[in-house]
Amino acid sequence: MNIKEIGGEEGFIERLRSTHAGAIGDGLILGIGDDAAIFETPSGLQTVVTTDMLVEDVHFRRDWSDPYSIGWKSAAVNLSDIAAMGAEPTLAFLSIAFNPEETVETLDRIYDGFSDCLNRYGARLAGGDTNSTSGGMVISVTLMGSVPAGQAFIRSGARPGDVLLVTGSLGDSAAGLILLQEYGLPKAEKVDKDVLNQHRRPQPRVMASRVLAQSGQVRAAMDLSDGLLTDLNKLCAASQVGARIDTGRLPISSAVRNAAKMLDKDPILLALQGGEDYELLLAVAPENVDDVIEAVTAAGTPLTAIGEVLKSGRRIVAPDGESDLDPGEGGWDHFAQ
Amino acid sequence: MNIKEIGGEEGFIERLRSTHAGAIGDGLILGIGDDAAIFETPSGLQTVVTTDMLVEDVHFRRDWSDPYSIGWKSAAVNLSDIAAMGAEPTLAFLSIAFNPEETVETLDRIYDGFSDCLNRYGARLAGGDTNSTSGGMVISVTLMGSVPAGQAFIRSGARPGDVLLVTGSLGDSAAGLILLQEYGLPKAEKVDKDVLNQHRRPQPRVMASRVLAQSGQVRAAMDLSDGLLTDLNKLCAASQVGARIDTGRLPISSAVRNAAKMLDKDPILLALQGGEDYELLLAVAPENVDDVIEAVTAAGTPLTAIGEVLKSGRRIVAPDGESDLDPGEGGWDHFAQ
Repeated sequence: MNIKEIGGEEGFIERLRSTHAGAIGDGLILGIGDDAAIFETPSGLQTVVTTDMLVEDVHFRRDWSDPYSIGWKSAAVNLSDIAAMGAEPTLAFLSIAFNPEETVETLDRIYDGFSDCLNRYGARLAGGDTNSTSGGMVISVTLMGSVPAGQAFIRSGARPGDVLLVTGSLGDSAAGLILLQEYGLPKAEKVDKDVLNQHRRPQPRVMASRVLAQSGQVRAAMDLSDGLLTDLNKLCAASQVGARIDTGRLPISSAVRNAAKMLDKDPILLALQGGEDYELLLAVAPENVDDVIEAVTAAGTPLTAIGEVLKSGRRIVAPDGESDLDPGEGGWDHFAQ
Repeated sequence: MNIKEIGGEEGFIERLRSTHAGAIGDGLILGIGDDAAIFETPSGLQTVVTTDMLVEDVHFRRDWSDPYSIGWKSAAVNLSDIAAMGAEPTLAFLSIAFNPEETVETLDRIYDGFSDCLNRYGARLAGGDTNSTSGGMVISVTLMGSVPAGQAFIRSGARPGDVLLVTGSLGDSAAGLILLQEYGLPKAEKVDKDVLNQHRRPQPRVMASRVLAQSGQVRAAMDLSDGLLTDLNKLCAASQVGARIDTGRLPISSAVRNAAKMLDKDPILLALQGGEDYELLLAVAPENVDDVIEAVTAAGTPLTAIGEVLKSGRRIVAPDGESDLDPGEGGWDHFAQ
């Protein structure tokens, strides 16, 4: 079924409104169907806003990802940014440009994946835009969240002596991507579905973020989308500090170790350089680290100390705990800027 | 100069931050450079949010519009939606996908046009995303505004007997587009630069909207982007009413009349069906019409009564004031749905 058969853009929007629109109430005054949505933030709360664009063949490939996963990931990468602010995700706006020949079924599955991911983490679809294009699909999402005034996690609060921590494990998405690049979808799926799904349907750390926000102990935070080294460099720049990473402590899953062996890659480099982890990177004062780790792991998310904030400079310590590790091109270069 | 020469995406974002980022303060707590922006809405105000995506060769053509105009229009179409809500525009988020070979100079001009239009109407750039694409350029804008609680203009408030009004004049952008289609840029520019600029650099009705909001007399409103007939149909559907348009009263500029003559088109059809007017369509109770017209025109924006809200049905009255006019395909069809 194509878009024309359901009444063109207007018919499609009406369909979205009846199936995917977030319920009015709880701050949302007016949703899909007017010139703009209207919402209200309770006093004492601030609103955080993030926006991410996903471009076909740059951020996703149709032969590697099903439409549901594309929709899921479009929500997840934005939810991850909201989690990185310590905020509660609230309202989403999805704009999409697609070929007029695209089937309604495909678009439905994209919106299904998007909505399922949104709803799982407590957010709602409140608006957007639909467009035709003769080029590849482009999805642009704007997501809002709310956070008590002054309590948002920012990148610039890390201080020398703080402990660096990451949620979950690192390198899974990168391993999934390399499996797809090397083997294509059918074989990659047989080899390791876990790392593949980490790449196609990442789980944003919204729950961990809520616990961290309640702890009040996060000095600085960001989400990992471009790889630990690159992203840590941004956090260091924002906080005007240096950092040391102890690679022997990096949380690396057995799936990544297995995939790395098969692909003849170093799992540590996958963890340091691999992008799209969508884990949280945190700086926490040393005296609070144990409490924070206990609270977050009790809520179901692994949290691992991986290094320390320094006054200046960058060090990547090898697993032996003594020598320096040079991650080579694409890692060190980025890290040292 | 290309993007690589200024340090890739990070370098480009740093450049944006230093040249185009909105100032912190006045509600904006944190802008470009973190995982998300943070803002605060004073109590008593609601936030309105709109998002519009512009796709190369669908919404703009590089051979017809210079980069500055493309940026300007990207802001203007969103500001128009905020104006249609009776809100004051505040913060903008611009995501863009462009070919890696695009020059920095071209991108600078796009952001210049975007910022100039934003700033002219009191809004600021607070974030966004930059991406590469092998396809055409895609620009996605999310714009926020604020409005006192309960005072936003919505589409669903029109009542039978209300007078329908439009700001400015209708059909100019459509005439500009047809001139471009028929003659190409150089000749079209010589024929009529006014209608061309109306197409390439529309002026959102933000000022008129502020005056209308202060009057408290707007029952329903929307902005005209798809043509008067199509858009009025949406307003009627939302308000569950009918409408009559008196075509003899439609505000049509002499530029549109001249262009129509040259193109052998009916200026009334251009005004009824032409898209991208970005004027405001309003419903106002008859007893308040004179006051509203006086206030808006005194503030520099023409405002014209063009018809009436009916209980049901649709009528388009010919300029003779008696017979019905059939705008033919593309007008009546849309109008009658």
